[in-house]
Amino acid sequence: MHSETFHLPADTGQADLMDLIAGLNADNRFHGILVQLPLPDQIDEATIIESIAPAKDVDGLHPISQGRMLQGQPTFLPCTPAGVQQVLLRSGYDPAGKHVVIVGRSNIVGKPLAALLMQRNPGGNATVTVCHTRTRDLPDITRQADILVAAMGVPGAVTADMVREGAVVIDVGINRVGYRLVGDVDYDAVAAKAEAITPVPGGIGPMTIALLLSNTLDAARRTVSV
Amino acid sequence: MHSETFHLPADTGQADLMDLIAGLNADNRFHGILVQLPLPDQIDEATIIESIAPAKDVDGLHPISQGRMLQGQPTFLPCTPAGVQQVLLRSGYDPAGKHVVIVGRSNIVGKPLAALLMQRNPGGNATVTVCHTRTRDLPDITRQADILVAAMGVPGAVTADMVREGAVVIDVGINRVGYRLVGDVDYDAVAAKAEAITPVPGGIGPMTIALLLSNTLDAARRTVSV
Repeated sequence: MHSETFHLPADTGQADLMDLIAGLNADNRFHGILVQLPLPDQIDEATIIESIAPAKDVDGLHPISQGRMLQGQPTFLPCTPAGVQQVLLRSGYDPAGKHVVIVGRSNIVGKPLAALLMQRNPGGNATVTVCHTRTRDLPDITRQADILVAAMGVPGAVTADMVREGAVVIDVGINRVGYRLVGDVDYDAVAAKAEAITPVPGGIGPMTIALLLSNTLDAARRTVSV
Repeated sequence: MHSETFHLPADTGQADLMDLIAGLNADNRFHGILVQLPLPDQIDEATIIESIAPAKDVDGLHPISQGRMLQGQPTFLPCTPAGVQQVLLRSGYDPAGKHVVIVGRSNIVGKPLAALLMQRNPGGNATVTVCHTRTRDLPDITRQADILVAAMGVPGAVTADMVREGAVVIDVGINRVGYRLVGDVDYDAVAAKAEAITPVPGGIGPMTIALLLSNTLDAARRTVSV
């Protein structure tokens, strides 16, 4: 794969960024476009993401991709949720029939992951609960999880008392604490109770990158075959 | 409001239907387009829905509308889920902080309603669980609901033993049993336990129509003001 990175000054205006994306949309050397988020305050993130050609939306964050996913249609899946799904499937923990509790409702993890895992599709069919800052009795709900996904962005927020013995725990958090990267799960204590757990770093992070490559390959193949 | 109904023969081909929609997309006398579902087998529903101009998608079923909703952006909301939300808000049952359990994961009710009620937006902020045919221990989960939404399309499937005393019960089912219309809830027995319950007919059905009119008015106002 060939890739190019466009580093823009922090004070780049929205029109200039839109021009760059319009150029990449039309440039058939590029099959995929990823806009690194978050964007500076002077730029409207939603407008930028919608300006990406859906056929090049390898990050899966264009609303048309997310709407197709919510409706169970084939589309580019957002990379982190798709990475979580693949980790589960390839480790022998098919979410079908399981109660998956997701803590966090971000646009890049919690909400699309819920949409993905509730589908009547292979890799889906989970009973899904989404919790967040407004959830009452959070530990009562997380303790019901067969598969618990921590995606709130708060270091060590998921403690051992919140996890059922034998649960599968997926830690999507990546938090900088001093010089260290830590997840949203209090790893050592939770690992002692969990049937399986993903580490941070080295767990879901690399899966996100793998799924981005996979989406890009799909995008390129689709262009070639058409 | 002026409206026109286009009755097409049951054997209408996909191209002819797409032509009709393309004409309505371009016709500025019409601010909203609703395609009555389901469509006959020879027509691909997803392709048809995507052919509606997003600015006229007053049914809120275009994937770009649903993706924007999932991301918490302003958009046309699908009418039945938006109707459920309005019934709750206008009856004094704000879902914020409540555990909403939705039984059923259709594209027109269960999945978009879950997406709507979990948002960090006014009328959202619920802890949301989506259950379906693959859910184990369904009554265990429905009994946790502060607000229980029945949307599986099975007459009387939600029985009193599945409902917590004092729960708010929303019945989205519309099933024909002989000459009668009945919901998904065993009404009399459940009503005796519920704090509040919507009837069938006369509950969510009229709300769906009200929200369709409201979306259409919004679409027209947007056109006029731009």
